[in-house]
Amino acid sequence: MKQQNLKKLIIKIFTKHSLSRKDSEICAEALLNAELVGAYGHGLSRIKMYCERISRKLINPKPKIKVKKISRSISHIDANNSIGFVAADLAIKTAIKHAQKTGIGMVAVKNSGHYGLSGYYAEQAVKKNLITIIYTNAPPAVAPHGALKTLFGTNPICFGSPTGTKIPFIFDTSISMINRGKIRVAARNNQSIPAGVALDKFGKPTTDAKKALAGVQLPIAGFRGSGLAWMVDILSGVLTGGNHAGRVKDPFDDFSGPQNIGHLFITFKANLFQKNYNQRIKDNIKTIKKLPKIKGVKEIMYPGQNKYARYKNNSKKEISIPDIIKKDLETLIS
Amino acid sequence: MKQQNLKKLIIKIFTKHSLSRKDSEICAEALLNAELVGAYGHGLSRIKMYCERISRKLINPKPKIKVKKISRSISHIDANNSIGFVAADLAIKTAIKHAQKTGIGMVAVKNSGHYGLSGYYAEQAVKKNLITIIYTNAPPAVAPHGALKTLFGTNPICFGSPTGTKIPFIFDTSISMINRGKIRVAARNNQSIPAGVALDKFGKPTTDAKKALAGVQLPIAGFRGSGLAWMVDILSGVLTGGNHAGRVKDPFDDFSGPQNIGHLFITFKANLFQKNYNQRIKDNIKTIKKLPKIKGVKEIMYPGQNKYARYKNNSKKEISIPDIIKKDLETLIS
Repeated sequence: MKQQNLKKLIIKIFTKHSLSRKDSEICAEALLNAELVGAYGHGLSRIKMYCERISRKLINPKPKIKVKKISRSISHIDANNSIGFVAADLAIKTAIKHAQKTGIGMVAVKNSGHYGLSGYYAEQAVKKNLITIIYTNAPPAVAPHGALKTLFGTNPICFGSPTGTKIPFIFDTSISMINRGKIRVAARNNQSIPAGVALDKFGKPTTDAKKALAGVQLPIAGFRGSGLAWMVDILSGVLTGGNHAGRVKDPFDDFSGPQNIGHLFITFKANLFQKNYNQRIKDNIKTIKKLPKIKGVKEIMYPGQNKYARYKNNSKKEISIPDIIKKDLETLIS
Repeated sequence: MKQQNLKKLIIKIFTKHSLSRKDSEICAEALLNAELVGAYGHGLSRIKMYCERISRKLINPKPKIKVKKISRSISHIDANNSIGFVAADLAIKTAIKHAQKTGIGMVAVKNSGHYGLSGYYAEQAVKKNLITIIYTNAPPAVAPHGALKTLFGTNPICFGSPTGTKIPFIFDTSISMINRGKIRVAARNNQSIPAGVALDKFGKPTTDAKKALAGVQLPIAGFRGSGLAWMVDILSGVLTGGNHAGRVKDPFDDFSGPQNIGHLFITFKANLFQKNYNQRIKDNIKTIKKLPKIKGVKEIMYPGQNKYARYKNNSKKEISIPDIIKKDLETLIS
């Protein structure tokens, strides 16, 4: 389907589910972006879920979002159970304004939901020549170090920086060996997942995506990954007023209440301390790219480069939609 | 040796090497703390190196440190090649003041050196009921993903938070599979290092600490650890005006110039958004500790707990000093 038509279709679906035209556009743009960068687990495959949560009154289609200004640099947003995209869009825009005025901005969000890719919001800040750090928590997927039960989410850590070129440095990684969205897509398509990234519900290693969904994803780097996940849970949940300690609900499986995810957005001017920041980071990247490479590696890529290439490439083409999702979308609009 | 006597000895060594009494005390306290928490690679084993760098005029014993105030929340410190402890001590104290006044503080440091443990500075902020995030870069030790040569340092990521108890949450991890200081201590004591954490200079796995020092430490979690290391290099080096892209000099081996390490300290009030932050984090930790445990695990520990226990335990005892270091100290004072 042509991008423009797909965008119109998504907007139609969300307005039909009582979102405002403006909020529907925000959602459509974020979802399209996820498809274009190849993050299918954060794209069209989630629309049915969002609509179901709206129908069950777990996502508020007409939220009264409150922005409480705490200082010239800091704001606190109560998203009133809005769809995550809308809360995150407001949050990053608020953080950008703070940073532009005072050098640094920090915005905490509570009562929000799944907002897609952190990197999508990071890009907005980077385009304004800001550096940004973004944290969000997520439903239980990874066991804390020493525990036999999942509790931490895939809790992504996102860092974005200008590069002095049109391709931003966007490091956006979950602390899980594998993204939960990817397991979900694999389960949907009856594909297997790599070995060593997940355990089944009995604690045994598995490559069966469906069994992994019912089990435990392994954290990266043992206790270090567990510590990073804990840090993200504190910064996005404990600090903000969002759910934490494993209480964020799985949007696909748990309809017992709103997710109440928390997010934290930190932004600051890239040239706060060095006027020639862009020149410095260009030099940094150039130096690293010049290193001798491992056999088979053509180019040392910086985080965000591959994603940008996928975006560029996919933008030229129509978006192909798996049949099962096409059916979902047709049902949602009918 | 009794702590007080050891402290006096360290102060005597540094004042003999032209540091002011006050700066010598700052160094002595940081070094003693490293011994007490069991981080021997950051303790007494480094004193000889610091003194050698002072003698070679690579560390400035009488620095004119400049603090440039950029906004009410942000400062930039030019450490004038001071010993790292002194620059970091001033930086965290400045960041704390900013956070106490405006809610958030950010302090960037350039022209600094190795400052010991990030967690030591994080504790200072946490004691004031602040959350803190600290980054510093370090000499080349880890190869970027895809590269055959070391460039990133062990680039620690440090996060500290109050817990509502006397034991702070201090997550302080290098992005390397093993701390370079630990390899150094092992090399000194002719001990081997674990398998899978380092390669020799030919790119072959090794458990020989001396060979590992000449080779490559492996990053945690492949491209994810490499991305984290790159992020830290940008935040502490590119941003601040410090060295970056592999140009931070190894303090033990490279006497061709000052290290010019950069650091970044971010602090903010823990109760910015939720007045009952301490209650919330107590609940968070309690919930996680209650999870079912892996066989053999007695208690799920949060980051900082083990270190605190070691500190408590070691504080009751005299500090034992390896003969080789005792000799160094005697030489330095004679």
